[in-house]
Amino acid sequence: MLLYNSPVSGNCYKVRLLLAHLGIEYERHEVDVIDRSGRAQLLGSINPALSIPTVVLDDGSPLAESHAILWYFGEGTSYMPQDRLGRARVLQWLSFEQYSHQPYIALLRYWLSIAHTPIAKEKIEARKPAGYAALDAMEQHLDGRSFLVDERYTIADIALYAYTHVAHEGDFDLAGYPAIGAWLARVEAQPGHIPITA
Amino acid sequence: MLLYNSPVSGNCYKVRLLLAHLGIEYERHEVDVIDRSGRAQLLGSINPALSIPTVVLDDGSPLAESHAILWYFGEGTSYMPQDRLGRARVLQWLSFEQYSHQPYIALLRYWLSIAHTPIAKEKIEARKPAGYAALDAMEQHLDGRSFLVDERYTIADIALYAYTHVAHEGDFDLAGYPAIGAWLARVEAQPGHIPITA
Repeated sequence: MLLYNSPVSGNCYKVRLLLAHLGIEYERHEVDVIDRSGRAQLLGSINPALSIPTVVLDDGSPLAESHAILWYFGEGTSYMPQDRLGRARVLQWLSFEQYSHQPYIALLRYWLSIAHTPIAKEKIEARKPAGYAALDAMEQHLDGRSFLVDERYTIADIALYAYTHVAHEGDFDLAGYPAIGAWLARVEAQPGHIPITA
Repeated sequence: MLLYNSPVSGNCYKVRLLLAHLGIEYERHEVDVIDRSGRAQLLGSINPALSIPTVVLDDGSPLAESHAILWYFGEGTSYMPQDRLGRARVLQWLSFEQYSHQPYIALLRYWLSIAHTPIAKEKIEARKPAGYAALDAMEQHLDGRSFLVDERYTIADIALYAYTHVAHEGDFDLAGYPAIGAWLARVEAQPGHIPITA
């Protein structure tokens, strides 16, 4: 299997983290996340959205979008609930991550710590309240729970961990979020865990 | 079952459309999408993200996020592929809708035709290129195909149809997208189809 990857992308890290837990081997093709000029040539025929991560499975089938790849490799493993409502709850958190978390927490990290985009302070500050609202929702849910769904470590935790654990690189302060802090430590204690730099 | 719904929300329409195909009955609780002031009281204990659609299943379990609800009701029906790669491809398109389509096409419709937000012309125009890029990706994929995944009508088509068929309300012109136009007509010809106004 081939993974079109970036070492700094949280979305690519989600895939690498699950594959590490599962002990699945793969090749990497590193893709630039700042200079996107070669994307159409590289990915156009396998992923019309030109996004990474994209994988090419051993039989040549391409598959894109981090959550779709997590789902593909997670189905039928211990990283996914056995029941229909549990799986739907996992997808609820994947959707939350994509719509309510990533456009604020991942985007500010990209601007401030990856691309070093010269951007007006008020444009940065304008993204903060929604980012903290996402953290508030996670804190409320994790208070009294070990993991996001069914009290077990699933691909929902992998998906939310990816950008939450580097939220400080987007200038978010997690000091006021003890339930999130304890959950981050539980994720890091899972067998086979690898850091984003791996 | 109870659906927290808005008649103008494309995300709620996705759920209503699948439930219509499946012949599943439910009650509606209508929620305002412009004045969000009562949301915390109404939804706080069942959905920390305070978003609609949210459903409360017959056993009292809440479930939120349109794609998670589609997945829950779609699993095991003819609206979902039978194989793992097909299901992952459905999720790929659900992710594409949420990340590359909705923030441009649904948002402009909301600004221009739902909330009538007084917004600067350049802020509107700034969202257009990414919206057209999403339509380009759909057109390229649908050219020569009947539906998004596995040549059959799935929840991926339902999810993408919801905001694509009202893209003109966000000032997007579909005239240059013949494959999308033919696909919209195929979706509308499915047995049990209902319009967004139903």
